This record gives sequence, C-alpha cells and structure tokens, in this order.
Amino acid sequence: MGDYKNMWENLDMDLDKHDILCSALPESFGEIYLTQKNRPESMNYFNYALAEVHGARIEELQKSKENGKKVVGTFCVFVPDEVIFAADAIGVGLCSGSQFWIEDGEKVLPRNLCPLVKAFVGAKISRTCPYFQSCNMLVGETTCDGKKKAYEILQEYMPIHVMDLPQMKKEKDFEQWQQEIKIFIKRMEELTQNKVTVKRLKEGIRLANRKRAVLKRLYDLRKNIPSPISGLDALLVSQVAFMDDPDRFITKTEQLCDELEERVKNGIPNTKKRIMITGTPMAIPNWKLHSIVEALDAEIVVEETCTGTRYFENQVSEEGNTLDELIKNIAQRYLNIHCACFTPNTGRMEDILEYVKEYKIDGVIYYNLSFCHTYAIEYKQVEKILKDKDIPLLNIETDYSEEDIGQIKTRIEAFLEMI
Amino acid sequence: MGDYKNMWENLDMDLDKHDILCSALPESFGEIYLTQKNRPESMNYFNYALAEVHGARIEELQKSKENGKKVVGTFCVFVPDEVIFAADAIGVGLCSGSQFWIEDGEKVLPRNLCPLVKAFVGAKISRTCPYFQSCNMLVGETTCDGKKKAYEILQEYMPIHVMDLPQMKKEKDFEQWQQEIKIFIKRMEELTQNKVTVKRLKEGIRLANRKRAVLKRLYDLRKNIPSPISGLDALLVSQVAFMDDPDRFITKTEQLCDELEERVKNGIPNTKKRIMITGTPMAIPNWKLHSIVEALDAEIVVEETCTGTRYFENQVSEEGNTLDELIKNIAQRYLNIHCACFTPNTGRMEDILEYVKEYKIDGVIYYNLSFCHTYAIEYKQVEKILKDKDIPLLNIETDYSEEDIGQIKTRIEAFLEMI
Repeated sequence: MGDYKNMWENLDMDLDKHDILCSALPESFGEIYLTQKNRPESMNYFNYALAEVHGARIEELQKSKENGKKVVGTFCVFVPDEVIFAADAIGVGLCSGSQFWIEDGEKVLPRNLCPLVKAFVGAKISRTCPYFQSCNMLVGETTCDGKKKAYEILQEYMPIHVMDLPQMKKEKDFEQWQQEIKIFIKRMEELTQNKVTVKRLKEGIRLANRKRAVLKRLYDLRKNIPSPISGLDALLVSQVAFMDDPDRFITKTEQLCDELEERVKNGIPNTKKRIMITGTPMAIPNWKLHSIVEALDAEIVVEETCTGTRYFENQVSEEGNTLDELIKNIAQRYLNIHCACFTPNTGRMEDILEYVKEYKIDGVIYYNLSFCHTYAIEYKQVEKILKDKDIPLLNIETDYSEEDIGQIKTRIEAFLEMI
Repeated sequence: MGDYKNMWENLDMDLDKHDILCSALPESFGEIYLTQKNRPESMNYFNYALAEVHGARIEELQKSKENGKKVVGTFCVFVPDEVIFAADAIGVGLCSGSQFWIEDGEKVLPRNLCPLVKAFVGAKISRTCPYFQSCNMLVGETTCDGKKKAYEILQEYMPIHVMDLPQMKKEKDFEQWQQEIKIFIKRMEELTQNKVTVKRLKEGIRLANRKRAVLKRLYDLRKNIPSPISGLDALLVSQVAFMDDPDRFITKTEQLCDELEERVKNGIPNTKKRIMITGTPMAIPNWKLHSIVEALDAEIVVEETCTGTRYFENQVSEEGNTLDELIKNIAQRYLNIHCACFTPNTGRMEDILEYVKEYKIDGVIYYNLSFCHTYAIEYKQVEKILKDKDIPLLNIETDYSEEDIGQIKTRIEAFLEMI
C-alpha cells in the first residue's frame, strides 16, 4: 500500500488505532485467500482492490469530492443505486464484517446485538473507517430493529437519510415505496445539486442493471461442476462490488468471467460437496464460514444472502418515459427482494428451492449472524421446505469472533460426512 | 374458581398441562398481591377478575360467541380498539408474562428472543391459553422483528390479520396508516358481517375514549404524595383492562378512583422513593419488577410502557361526520404513540421528562425485556436526557425467570440508597 497517512489525517481518522486494523488485514487475507491453489489470474484485480481498500479507492473518492462529487454511504441492498448514480454521486457500502470494531460499537450499543450493526457503529465512532469518514451523507432504511435504531446513534455524528421500507408487500406498500424513492431522489438532489432527470435516471438504471448482470453472469458460471471459482473468491468479488467504481468493477468482473468460461471448457469434475449458504450478509473481511467450509472437501457455489443473490437478482425495467414510470420500475424490483424483514417472505422459500436445483446443491448451510431475529425465526420455514425435499441443512449462528471456529469446523465436518 | 373443565375441553385445550399452569397462579398472586397492606376495597373486583381470568371471563366470551359475536386477539396497543368495538366484536390482549410458556415457545422460536414473544407463541402451541383458544382471528402488527416474524408461525394455527405499521412518522406515514386502518375495517367487517358505519365507529371511539379516560384518572391519582394505590395494584388494573369487558372495566375502575380520591383527602405523606418505570410492557402475570421494588422502601407511581401510559395517553377526536374523517382521527392518535419501534422516537424523551415532573419522580428504572433491541438501543438516549437533568436511572434487562430476582433486588436496593 502507498503512503496515505496525510489523506487519513485529513479525514480526521484515529491514525494509531487505524494502524492496528491495517496490520491485521493483510495477514488474514494472505492466510485465507492467497493460499488457495489454482486461482483465476483475473482475481489479481480483486486482491489489489482488497489490499487498497483503505488506500487507492479512498484516494479516488477524495479526488471525486474535490471535483464536486458527493459520497453517500449505505447499509443495505434496498437503497436503490440507480438514484445515487442518477444524482451523479458515489455510493459505498458501509456494512462491516470486522471483529475489530465490535468493542467500540458496544460502547454505545447493547452487547446482545447483531455484530454487523455493532461493527459499523464502532467503525464510525472510532474514526477508523475511511469510507465513513469520506461520506457526505448516510442512507439508512428500516429493515431491522437493530439497524433502524442504530441510525439514531449515527445521526449524532453525521447527516443521515432514512428510507421507510414497508414491512409487507401489499399493493399499497408498492405505492408507499415509490413515494419513499421520490423522497430519496429529492434528498439526493439537494445534496448534490444535480437534477435527477428522466435521462439521468435511465442511465442510472442501465448502469445498475449492467452491474447486476455481470454478477449474475459470475453466479451462473458457478452452476458448473466443478465451479470454476471458489466460494471465497466469488465472495470477495461481491464484497468489492459494494466499494468499487461501478464501471471498472463491471469491466474487471467481465474479464474474470471470460477467464472462468475458459476454465469451464477445460474443467475436470471433482467430488467436492456443493454447498449453498442462505441467510445473513458477509461484509469485508468476514470470510469466516467460507474459509472453514472450503478448507474441507466442499465448495460454496451460491449465497442466498444480501452479499449474494439478493444483491443482483432481477433487473429494473428500462421501459418508460417519465420519472414516475421509472420510479415504479425501481420500486418493483427492490420491493421484490426477498429479505426476512418482510412478513410474509414466501418468495425466499421459492428462491432457495430454485437455487438448490439450479446450482445442484448437496447441502445447505443456514448462516445466521447472532441476534438477527428475522432470519433466526425464518429458519423454521426454511427447515420445513428443505426437509420436505430431503435436502440436508445445517444451522450456524455465529458472530465475528474466532472463538467458535473450532466448534463450527467440527459441525461442518460432521455435516459433510452425512451428506 | 368454578368448574370450567367442560368449557376448556370444548376449547381444545391441553387440560393436564393447563392444570399445572392454574395451580401456580393463585400462589404467586397470593404472595405478591394479597400480602399488601391497606389495599383499596375496590381492588376486590380486580382480584376476582384475575382469579377468574381463565374462568368467568372465558365463559362470557363463549356466551357472546354463541350469540354470534366474534373474538379477536391482539398483541399491541397500536391495534385500534375503536374498530373492534365498531364491528361489534370483542378484543382481548394476548401478550403473555408467564415463564410457563417459554419452554413451548422455544420449540419453534430461537431462545435468544424476547420472552413476551416466546410466551405468547408457547401459549398458543401448547393449547393452554383459553383466550387464544377463544379467538376467531388474531390481529398482529409490524412493530418489532420478533413479533412480526412470530406471527408467521401463529398463522399455521389460526387466521391472522397483520397491520403494516409505518416505522417512521413522516407525513405520508400518517396517510399510509389510515389506509391500513381501512384495510383492517374491511377485514373486521368480513369477519363479523357487521358494517362499520359512521355511527358505530363514533360509538367505538367514545367507548375507547372512556376507557382511556378512566385509566388516565387512575394515573393522575398516582401523582399524589403518597400515591393512594400501590404500583402493583395499578399494574393489575392495567393488565385486567386488556381482558375485561370494557363497560364493566370502566365502571369498576371509576369506583376504584372514587375510593382513591377519598384516600388522597386523608393521605399521610410517606418517605417512600417515587419510582417511574420506563420501557417494555408487563403482561399478566409479570409482576416481577414491581414486587421487588415495592417490597423495598419505594413505590412505583407511573409506568411509561405499553401496559402503562402508552395505552391511554391522548384521545381520539370525536369530531367528523364521515368514515374518512374518523379514520384520520384514529390514525392521528395511534401513530402518536411513542414506541421505540419508530425512528426517530423523540416524543418518548419528552414524555419521560414530563412524567418525571408530573409524578414527582425520585428515580427511573429502565425496564428492558431481554433481546428487545429497539428499547435496548434507545436506552442511551434516555440515559442522556435524564443525566442532563440529574435524574437517577437504573437499567434492568431481564426475562420472566426467577433466577435473577436476587441480583435485581440487590441492584435496586443500592439504587434506592443512592437517590
């Protein structure tokens, strides 16, 4: 990494504390990622993107800001990128997967709360996340009790706009979500001083669609036996997608997919168990479950999570010649994301069964971040539909700590032997 | 209690298990309530109501049902009683405060979930709650992750209508809540085959207002030094309000208030510390915190909870000559309840400070049911506003078990000594 000390200082970061964070990341990345054998060449870009996640990318953000661009931080796949693009702003995902930030998060939040929420709040209040420090505004949403209330704490540190996501999918909820998107557009226009026109919003939709399409292409390639890419590497690509410049990300991921297609042609089937992960998201550097599973005789070939399929499934229709029509299209796609925050959420059950077939799944691991109530309660439904089809399922509830790694490994070993 | 075995059998209850539940209640009620000295005479009615909570009141419900009435069960003060009354139905509160039901709840729900949610689900699946067994329909709402998702489990057992409560209080959220009330009216009309007319809805509003007014009268009496009624007794009145026939409840509570007014005239000031409880609700038979506090040299004089002030504060305007106008009035009152499920929820901070003055509070106890994220996170804000005014605050997070009673007692003793 280059010398970014000045930049970090200008971002009002706690440099000493940040040094500790920076010193831990390369080691764990090296151990988990760089020891993988026979990785695609094109993963080099994503290795670089990860290595420079607090460096080169942050530098780009500062340069864009100097040229008048605004940066907004988001925490959820429900916030429509289309609007951020249309307002000529930059969006960055602020969810965090690091145990490093838990301690600071617990200074202002209850301990028995989801680690993802504790980590992102800790990241802000400790001033050790350059993404947070680069943001002109945060965009929250009412997807779960933990995040919803944590935004009230973040609000003391920086401006935040919260989108009121309906908790159901009645007809009127689609209306109400369109209204929320309109309010968000207005707020983005105020922030950026750029008008969201029909033309710009269409361009935004196109860009977001292209980004989703390339992720879909990547995931489709994983349907091959064997998958031409490890679950770990696919996860890294998804994680980088939340931070990176979208155009560059698309180009680099297309290149990766080209290479993977070649691999598929020359692929030699293996006997690894094909695993689906379903549940809660995995933000950088949360590679815990993937690294455990793939160190055994198994490969993760799909994640039905917000850092997986929920991020890219379904496109926004580009049809329409008015803002209202385009906003309706956006609302339609986003409210059809099957997050456990909705009641009911039967669409997720259909997705899971569909993926089991499409990705030729041998077993499913339900991944639940500790204290995430919505996914934890929905487990019983997933258990039922998979049991009906005789598909093996393992429930893992965990946080970001390393304490339970041995125990999880033992349980997954037993699970793999059984299937 | 009379012999209700036949009735319970007809309600498809698990009689053996129910016997165990019934045998525990009188003992704990006797120990906690009947040992209080110098209770108001008029509390006899509420003692009776509690003793007959699974008997006489259930018998009434059955008789009403035989006469064509429908019974709907609710879990939250956001479901407007006005609509239930207007449809000529009977509403009963189904939240539960008993440890007895936790074990059954944990068969289908995660353990690290709010005890209130685990208890009401356990009550249903164990078939030991005659209120659940008497209901023609349940009415849920999207107030918290735990309840929202638990309703999906209850739906497997009986019909449920869920109201999509907005998570914010923007202008459009008031519109959206009016629409939800309209949908609820339609559903109640279908269930009861009674038309909700302007006349009936006005009568419903009047009845609900009268019920809220008498609870307000009771609470206002508690502002006296000393309070003419113990916190335990006031809590019992509130709890009975969720089960009882509204007209009888109003009459009996007015009588109690008349008696309390006489007591106030003859009252001799005492030196007991005046305590406010703020936080999560206390359903029957959850008298845990009140019994600990009032066994010490303190009296609880107000509960800023859903079984306290949030249940009765503010009235629905009776002005208006169309359904739309009345529905707007209802929406206005209910969306102004200051529950931690909203973001932001600054109204609650104002209420707490107001009550500290009005009720002449010496110290505040923040009561948080375990794993209730919204109230747990909001604690920091309450801590801040009370610290600014130098008002002592103690945070108690607990469930329905008896294990931590000793520890809580020690902490409250220390707290009382300090203030």
